[in-house]
Amino acid sequence: MAIITLTTDFGEKDHFAGATKGAIYSELPDVKIVDISHSVSPFNILEAAYIIQNAYSSFPKGTIHVIGIDSEINPENKHIAIKLDDHFFICANNGIMSMICSEIAPEKIVEINIHDRIQSSFPVLDVFVKVACHIARGGTLEVIGKTIHETKPIKNVVPYVNDDKTQIIGSIIYVDNYGNVVTNIKRSFFETIQKGRPFIISARNYKFKSIYKKYSDIVNFDIPEDKRHDEGRGLVVFNSGDFLEIAVYKSNSATVGSASSLMGLNLMDTVTVNFLKE
Amino acid sequence: MAIITLTTDFGEKDHFAGATKGAIYSELPDVKIVDISHSVSPFNILEAAYIIQNAYSSFPKGTIHVIGIDSEINPENKHIAIKLDDHFFICANNGIMSMICSEIAPEKIVEINIHDRIQSSFPVLDVFVKVACHIARGGTLEVIGKTIHETKPIKNVVPYVNDDKTQIIGSIIYVDNYGNVVTNIKRSFFETIQKGRPFIISARNYKFKSIYKKYSDIVNFDIPEDKRHDEGRGLVVFNSGDFLEIAVYKSNSATVGSASSLMGLNLMDTVTVNFLKE
Amino acid sequence: MAIITLTTDFGEKDHFAGATKGAIYSELPDVKIVDISHSVSPFNILEAAYIIQNAYSSFPKGTIHVIGIDSEINPENKHIAIKLDDHFFICANNGIMSMICSEIAPEKIVEINIHDRIQSSFPVLDVFVKVACHIARGGTLEVIGKTIHETKPIKNVVPYVNDDKTQIIGSIIYVDNYGNVVTNIKRSFFETIQKGRPFIISARNYKFKSIYKKYSDIVNFDIPEDKRHDEGRGLVVFNSGDFLEIAVYKSNSATVGSASSLMGLNLMDTVTVNFLKE
Repeated sequence: MAIITLTTDFGEKDHFAGATKGAIYSELPDVKIVDISHSVSPFNILEAAYIIQNAYSSFPKGTIHVIGIDSEINPENKHIAIKLDDHFFICANNGIMSMICSEIAPEKIVEINIHDRIQSSFPVLDVFVKVACHIARGGTLEVIGKTIHETKPIKNVVPYVNDDKTQIIGSIIYVDNYGNVVTNIKRSFFETIQKGRPFIISARNYKFKSIYKKYSDIVNFDIPEDKRHDEGRGLVVFNSGDFLEIAVYKSNSATVGSASSLMGLNLMDTVTVNFLKE
Repeated sequence: MAIITLTTDFGEKDHFAGATKGAIYSELPDVKIVDISHSVSPFNILEAAYIIQNAYSSFPKGTIHVIGIDSEINPENKHIAIKLDDHFFICANNGIMSMICSEIAPEKIVEINIHDRIQSSFPVLDVFVKVACHIARGGTLEVIGKTIHETKPIKNVVPYVNDDKTQIIGSIIYVDNYGNVVTNIKRSFFETIQKGRPFIISARNYKFKSIYKKYSDIVNFDIPEDKRHDEGRGLVVFNSGDFLEIAVYKSNSATVGSASSLMGLNLMDTVTVNFLKE
Repeated sequence: MAIITLTTDFGEKDHFAGATKGAIYSELPDVKIVDISHSVSPFNILEAAYIIQNAYSSFPKGTIHVIGIDSEINPENKHIAIKLDDHFFICANNGIMSMICSEIAPEKIVEINIHDRIQSSFPVLDVFVKVACHIARGGTLEVIGKTIHETKPIKNVVPYVNDDKTQIIGSIIYVDNYGNVVTNIKRSFFETIQKGRPFIISARNYKFKSIYKKYSDIVNFDIPEDKRHDEGRGLVVFNSGDFLEIAVYKSNSATVGSASSLMGLNLMDTVTVNFLKE
């Protein structure tokens, strides 16, 4: 049976996520529902884009992803369904899909037009659930919408490179549960520009000259454990989603601090990479 | 197979919700368990009442709702099971069900009396799970309790109306994930008193003369997007549960602010509707 | 079909938990996945140990528990799989299992050695999921690792007793969702030392001379409800996991306060029991 995932800004407390699941099971008792996140910051498109991009591809082909962020329909915010990479996505056309679509071309995009049959102030429950269950039963996108050819773009999905290709100017697009800050600079993009040159990564007044393979590569295990002081030290890695990330070793915002709290790095702050002559 | 939902104040961190699910699967491997919320404020009956009322009816008939808030048994806090609207509810008789019961009469209420067989300091795990699984297997309420005819009421479920019917005095009963504040004034109640008259809704020193159909109705889409300043503006809607709600357009407590943070509106604050002569 | 549980410090927002579930369903479409907690404080081994100990035994025999806390592999932090009490546990060998192992001897411990086939910066997804699915399919531990005989210990799992056996010095190992503080003093341990003697429990300048059976035993139900002032009063119980706990009746950190907030009790603070002459 199909899997339907949920990514929303409903939060953990309100009834919205529970009601949505109830509505899905009312239509399809045997479907599997998986929560990806209900804690996206309210109306934060970029966060949602980052989360869904990093989660979706672990799911089996054919999975249906419902994304409920800023989904109230209005003249500028239409509902869409997308087939991409053999997965389905149902969301508002507000830029959420632009991060995924900048890497993989959609096979099919439709603007959902079943609304004349539905009056709703809760579109995830009333519209997205219906579309998800339609797809789960094997229905085609053409039945529930008219084909369009582009999704709405958002800013800051791709970093800036200067003409000389000596500098990448990126942005922090996500702060994770450990307070690590994730930039929009992907490994493949970085390496294409780098061409093996040494570099300096700068964020505020912090500088980094190397990118670790994993967090604990900062530790010198030859030094006895009680003589080391690695917790709380800053470092740079490509994270598991292959985004350049400024992290703090064993960070915890409530105790040793995190990249975000210790270095004062926040969403939309600039991270610069300067490539040096070899 | 049956669905069992969970609504508790266990929080997201502790083992209580996980242990409860384990106990259910130990009895019934094929049941579906759905979290409605584990983030009800500790011991907050009114919040739980609001959440379960808004979530339950999206589930299929026959669903069993376990509500674990203030559920320790004592001489004044008995355990009950209710059949209502073809759904089952298992909870303490502490007022949680009074909001639903004020709208729909229960078919059956029993005071659970299986406790002489159970010693417990974790009643959701030890008592509610047993009752839920009994019902899921098709067992009747009579077997696990003795019939009673009323549930304990709570205050603030219904707003006050003056004798002239020129004023409704309501209360804020819930603050949602977006910081929007929900009153106990339901649409049907409002419209019965209103009889088409114009009105002024007052909360602290904020006044509203209209109720929107949806949040984005506050936006004038004829104005170019970059010239609009709608984010953070206050408005009133009937929300998806048909409760009168004071909201802020695209609110986010951490950025533009919310109805709760911007207007200083909190749980139990008064919201007044004054009806005017036509 | 098998059950796989997840206990991590991934938080509620990030994609990590969702991606992990997707990866499990990609291998085993019919498995049941249960979240125990994703809100363990980052890198907090002792919290995770407490949560998993209190949750696991409610699940059916054969359940597979994936614990994702501080799981990056390095020369001092190997991955292990354990069979204990007919349950399976997959985690880093960082002390998480030492609380359970101090009470029940493992049947089998293996150090996982499938890593040469896997390059990963997300070991829960890439390694633990593979091991969990291997076990769920009926595979043996020997196939995925080499047998070892001990897990890494952690401090503060067991309280200290003086030579005279007149004093137990325990520590606060967990603060729960209600702000109640849980010590490492278990009921069986307490009673073995106590041998029926009266006692004084001290935490900071707070003293308690009795241990209640349940929270509401502090209430005198002979006094009319509107004349009682029990909410916010401190008390001691053995909690549902049989740990000595200092609690506040109907505590809520945001309103009446909690044991943690009212008494200033925090993780690792000392709680002393002095036994008196009869």
